Amino acid sequence: MRIITNIDDMKAYSREAKSQGKSIGLVPTMGFLHEGHMSLVRAAGEECDVVVLSIFVNPVQFGPGEDYEKYPRDMERDKKIAEETGVDHIFAPGVDEMYPDGYATYIEPEGHMASILCGKSRPGHFKGVDTVVAKLFNIVSPDKSYFGQKDAQQAVIIRQMVKDLNMNTEIRVMPIVREDDGLAASSRNAYLTGDERRQALGLYRSLKEAERLVSGGERSAGKLKKEMEKILLEGKDVRVDYIEAVDARTLKEVDLLKGETLIAVAAVVGNTKLIDNTVVRSGS
Amino acid sequence: MRIITNIDDMKAYSREAKSQGKSIGLVPTMGFLHEGHMSLVRAAGEECDVVVLSIFVNPVQFGPGEDYEKYPRDMERDKKIAEETGVDHIFAPGVDEMYPDGYATYIEPEGHMASILCGKSRPGHFKGVDTVVAKLFNIVSPDKSYFGQKDAQQAVIIRQMVKDLNMNTEIRVMPIVREDDGLAASSRNAYLTGDERRQALGLYRSLKEAERLVSGGERSAGKLKKEMEKILLEGKDVRVDYIEAVDARTLKEVDLLKGETLIAVAAVVGNTKLIDNTVVRSGS
Repeated sequence: MRIITNIDDMKAYSREAKSQGKSIGLVPTMGFLHEGHMSLVRAAGEECDVVVLSIFVNPVQFGPGEDYEKYPRDMERDKKIAEETGVDHIFAPGVDEMYPDGYATYIEPEGHMASILCGKSRPGHFKGVDTVVAKLFNIVSPDKSYFGQKDAQQAVIIRQMVKDLNMNTEIRVMPIVREDDGLAASSRNAYLTGDERRQALGLYRSLKEAERLVSGGERSAGKLKKEMEKILLEGKDVRVDYIEAVDARTLKEVDLLKGETLIAVAAVVGNTKLIDNTVVRSGS
Repeated sequence: MRIITNIDDMKAYSREAKSQGKSIGLVPTMGFLHEGHMSLVRAAGEECDVVVLSIFVNPVQFGPGEDYEKYPRDMERDKKIAEETGVDHIFAPGVDEMYPDGYATYIEPEGHMASILCGKSRPGHFKGVDTVVAKLFNIVSPDKSYFGQKDAQQAVIIRQMVKDLNMNTEIRVMPIVREDDGLAASSRNAYLTGDERRQALGLYRSLKEAERLVSGGERSAGKLKKEMEKILLEGKDVRVDYIEAVDARTLKEVDLLKGETLIAVAAVVGNTKLIDNTVVRSGS
């Protein structure tokens, strides 16, 4: 497994692989790898000849006061996990390599897709995401790129960017991976104390309750949200950021569930922002 | 020569050419071809195996009240000129093909490069340019892409985008082509009446005067601008938009000329907005 920190080197490796007729799978991450990332690497390994894992904590997608500085990093541990999971190249550029002096070009997702859900409390977040992901696509030239369903809104916005800008990679979105207790795998789980972690399980329990209500015939988004909020607020250190029911493809808010609905929740537990979601299907 | 209107077809032709080891040169235009465009096609023909000329009047780079609707179009004439000049494929998509319903992703050049010169009077213009050019790059996958020095600011901003987003095409900027009387070749010249055209020559004459003064040792940007303005205002229907002296690479305004300076002028003659420029070299 190679560790590549330089953009030109990464481009050269990708060109080399392509010239040998090999397909490339890209798994973009901010490191501190967990089972969610590993599931993406395994999918890439099954579908592509070469697996590139990028590790880059992207300053541009963090807002002022967010956790850019303290975001967990452990390159040695990541290298070990990546090698064991079948990564061929780690691409881990420095911030100056990705955003040199005079950097001035950004990709902006406009409209409601980027302004609802996490877009409300994190203005500029998805602009940072689109920008860094477009850069990675141009550097690595992946045939397929792998993202996790845990960041459902991110996946929809990146799919839209690929479609809008006519990019030449296929977006593959893989299911949420959960830890044994049900908490969605996330690098930020490392922030949680034992007590906070117990409270954080409210996100998962609220989504399970929503699923149960929908299978029982409930179609009112308002009713679902109310029941979910009750469960979340059982945690004394939980502050709800949003509970939303939106069309899974367009992210437009729904009042009555129909077709595929993304039920998404974001909450701050202690000082840790967590998100989770489920997609439910219901007849019209 | 093929005329391609569909994005997937264009991508397929480009893939085919690449798989045969052929290099692709892209000349992006808004059509109504003139000698300036033809010089780009000839350069592409000398340097690349396949020449793709795109013709697309990009609505996104026109502001409200600008000339999108009346911008000159003549596809039959363009086809003839393109074929005679050595174009292999014309890519001429419709607006719905490039910006389908729900389109939501834009590339935004930030900072002073996009806010000075034409960026002052045309907010959003370079966002429209970057967005369509990025789309064309992803659709055509050109090894080299050709732009005219007449749109000097556009060329600098596109170079910056390619660098910032790590795009895989080389930007080639070709010298301004002038008509016999000195007027810079432009599709918009077709708007000018005979009298306006005589007045429009003030742009060229003002730049020649600036060149003459610089060779004579003049280093003051203020002095140059004053002399240029005098010449421009000899035309009774001329309204000056800007006269600027900026660093040719960074587009930062200069007071005293040093190294390579872009002297750029924009004026409205009658109802027609015209731009022109020259690059002068001076010791420190």
